[in-house]
Amino acid sequence: MPKFKSLVLFVFLLIVVSFSACKNESDSAQKAKYVFYFIGDGMGNQQITTTQAYLASQVDNKIGTSNLAFTQFPVVGLAETFAYNRYVTGSAAAGTALATGNKTSINTIGLSHDYSDTLYSIAHHANNNGFSVGVATSVSIDHATPAAFYAHQTQRSYYHSIAHDMINSGFRYFGGGGLRDPKGKKSDSPKGNVYQHGKENGVLFTNNLSASDDTLSNYQTIVYSVPKPSYGNTLQYQIDAKDEHDIKLKDIAKQGINVLSSSNSGFFFMIEGGKIDWACHDNDAATTIMDMIAFSDAIDLAVEFYNEFPNETLIVVTSDHETGGMSLGNSYNGYNTDVSFLNNQKYSLEVFNSKVRDFKASHNGSPTFDQVKQLLIHDFSLGMSYDSLPSSCQEAIRSAYAASIGNKTDEQQVVIKTEYGSFDPIAVVAVRTINRLAGIGWSTGAHTGSHVPVYAMGAGQHLFNGQMDNTDIPKRIARAMGIDNF
Amino acid sequence: MPKFKSLVLFVFLLIVVSFSACKNESDSAQKAKYVFYFIGDGMGNQQITTTQAYLASQVDNKIGTSNLAFTQFPVVGLAETFAYNRYVTGSAAAGTALATGNKTSINTIGLSHDYSDTLYSIAHHANNNGFSVGVATSVSIDHATPAAFYAHQTQRSYYHSIAHDMINSGFRYFGGGGLRDPKGKKSDSPKGNVYQHGKENGVLFTNNLSASDDTLSNYQTIVYSVPKPSYGNTLQYQIDAKDEHDIKLKDIAKQGINVLSSSNSGFFFMIEGGKIDWACHDNDAATTIMDMIAFSDAIDLAVEFYNEFPNETLIVVTSDHETGGMSLGNSYNGYNTDVSFLNNQKYSLEVFNSKVRDFKASHNGSPTFDQVKQLLIHDFSLGMSYDSLPSSCQEAIRSAYAASIGNKTDEQQVVIKTEYGSFDPIAVVAVRTINRLAGIGWSTGAHTGSHVPVYAMGAGQHLFNGQMDNTDIPKRIARAMGIDNF
Repeated sequence: MPKFKSLVLFVFLLIVVSFSACKNESDSAQKAKYVFYFIGDGMGNQQITTTQAYLASQVDNKIGTSNLAFTQFPVVGLAETFAYNRYVTGSAAAGTALATGNKTSINTIGLSHDYSDTLYSIAHHANNNGFSVGVATSVSIDHATPAAFYAHQTQRSYYHSIAHDMINSGFRYFGGGGLRDPKGKKSDSPKGNVYQHGKENGVLFTNNLSASDDTLSNYQTIVYSVPKPSYGNTLQYQIDAKDEHDIKLKDIAKQGINVLSSSNSGFFFMIEGGKIDWACHDNDAATTIMDMIAFSDAIDLAVEFYNEFPNETLIVVTSDHETGGMSLGNSYNGYNTDVSFLNNQKYSLEVFNSKVRDFKASHNGSPTFDQVKQLLIHDFSLGMSYDSLPSSCQEAIRSAYAASIGNKTDEQQVVIKTEYGSFDPIAVVAVRTINRLAGIGWSTGAHTGSHVPVYAMGAGQHLFNGQMDNTDIPKRIARAMGIDNF
Repeated sequence: MPKFKSLVLFVFLLIVVSFSACKNESDSAQKAKYVFYFIGDGMGNQQITTTQAYLASQVDNKIGTSNLAFTQFPVVGLAETFAYNRYVTGSAAAGTALATGNKTSINTIGLSHDYSDTLYSIAHHANNNGFSVGVATSVSIDHATPAAFYAHQTQRSYYHSIAHDMINSGFRYFGGGGLRDPKGKKSDSPKGNVYQHGKENGVLFTNNLSASDDTLSNYQTIVYSVPKPSYGNTLQYQIDAKDEHDIKLKDIAKQGINVLSSSNSGFFFMIEGGKIDWACHDNDAATTIMDMIAFSDAIDLAVEFYNEFPNETLIVVTSDHETGGMSLGNSYNGYNTDVSFLNNQKYSLEVFNSKVRDFKASHNGSPTFDQVKQLLIHDFSLGMSYDSLPSSCQEAIRSAYAASIGNKTDEQQVVIKTEYGSFDPIAVVAVRTINRLAGIGWSTGAHTGSHVPVYAMGAGQHLFNGQMDNTDIPKRIARAMGIDNF
């Protein structure tokens, strides 16, 4: 009988081993206890391609692709992005899809398309199931994508109400550029000071990334904002963050991971690269790529965490939509792309625009064309002398100068706005010239309808294979986490 | 002891069952005996998105995506496309990568970048391993993508030499629009009549899709060409193939499947949707989408075959590169896309261009603007009256009329060519207007560098997951087929 017993044990172990050999491909796999959900706002396939090509070009001007870590995740999927009432989606509707698993109408946050139902996010369900929950972004914490994980508002622009929803969420960690309307100054129906509301609910508002664990553990919720927010209560673009003390997305992600992992309850952490989209709206490739790298740097922290807890960690990286119709290749250069040429760009369009305005002010509003040429070539810079530029680029710069300098009639101003948007034409033409010479194309200043990639690694990774709707992604995360009621 | 023996058997069976539960995820899975390798030339993620959106719009003008069958394959990957010596690849270098698993230089077919090595394709290896091999395309059979599977030439334009390589390949089936230089009339070094060379090597050249199995079995190789080839020895664009007798890619695919499956040796069949790329070079969205559908229709035949032999069939669908920087969304319409508006377009740009030329000739070269407006609205058509068009569209049509009609100086001709390319400005502006009103954007008339999707279903499907280089694809197919020496 002992012989028989040991044989039974042997049989049992063999079966266990056999099944565990394929366990990571089945639903009986270990649940994801630590979940990272990265959303690159505006990050289509093209933004990833171009960033990989840029990084490769930095090494001996190599033609190829550098492996941004997340592009090497074992599982890839594609997600369809359309909104309930528009094919080309926006960040509110797409954020709601990615957070709650439901299509909704444009500009709606966490509500059904007709506002009749409240939609709860995977973050909300994770919180209810005992996970620590974090939300971090490079834009303001009340912006559409992060808001979709905790707020329920008919308009994404209701920043004040969204901030109150943030307090009410009971999540453990928030981090980003700040809040846009904490005191209700821009709100039709202010609901009181968000800071006061937070204080009454155990919230620490802080600008300190080095706050001690002891301090942080005294609060139910941490809301971290950068000390010196950029336009729109955001982090600086990575291209402009030249000081080593400038706060980057990965710094916030690091604090978030520390806070969320301090309990043993597991966590769900959504981290958005929010300004990729902004740079793409500006058709500004160098700024886009640097913010893509900043986003990828934050993902690398999650990969480090995964390496420590590979059986219990899931990392999903995706996007809400593509922005700009970006392409490596444009109608001017044909097949002659040189993405390393983007190295010449020193600032984002946004920052260069303010430099152009300062420059004009310091020249009584009317710098000469030669002075503007010097600014473009030496300060921006275009990477070559004005006379070496293709004649059509020279022509574009002359037109921009004419559009920028001197008084304009109302009618002229409309034409200029249509051609150059809200930035100074001189700043715009500088970025356009750099993009053109690098061989980057853009088809629009708005979003596009392309399917976006989904990269996954870790516990439950196999759930993210194939082409899916964007609403499937949070459902599959819930399944990986063992959250049944989502 | 009998008890012990039966227990051992039981243990053995349990282990077998346990392992077989995950066998389709391991290399010990059944080999792929029937392999379909579909290449959509110029088919990026955006072309797929737009086609899915168009198909959805045909059903009650629905916002969403219709499931082109291949987009529902269980496995999705992404492939990097760059060539050896240029980031934005071309069909010869990309075809060589997809066929032989090696990067090569632009315009090179089946040779290493410096022509020092001969590169052999997965089709060649399949043939040597006893599989029946077929190559089909909607362009000419000697075009870059199909040629990469059987030819070895320093220039893709050596059509005559490529056709001789086709004869020498020993493959079982070729199908497409025809051959571009079978008699060596355009060749610097004609190698003799390809038809004669074929005849000496057991090749049947035929225009008959209904040839009997008995007839076909008398020949070592079948080369099918359509009876009435379109420009460049190709199939007609699907949008122009209005007669039910017009030959479509699926008709050729069907003959190929019949020929290849007549032996029991298994097969490898490469099928290219070659004119997707051509339509995208013309920035012609309606024509692109219809050729995407024609390509998908051919894939559906492979899916039918898979349904019959699911354990032994592998279908891989991918692309060589994206063309045009296509986007659903453009700078004119912003978020207002209406892809069903493309229904108004009746012909490809290519066919409409010849109609415009005929129309001009029938009006002594100088039709009035009113006559041209009538042509555009009623014959092409633009889907609305000229007066209902946005004023900037009206302006574009007036400019195109001015560019098209009347004698031009050499200098003017250069400007017109830069603005409109090789087609008549009136034909070009018609297609641009349709694209613009539908909300389709384009960033270039050339290729772009975007990663392209890879869809896989069947035996060995799991090998195609994740992001990979395009050279990995044929290597993975070889692995799925059990071809070790590739």
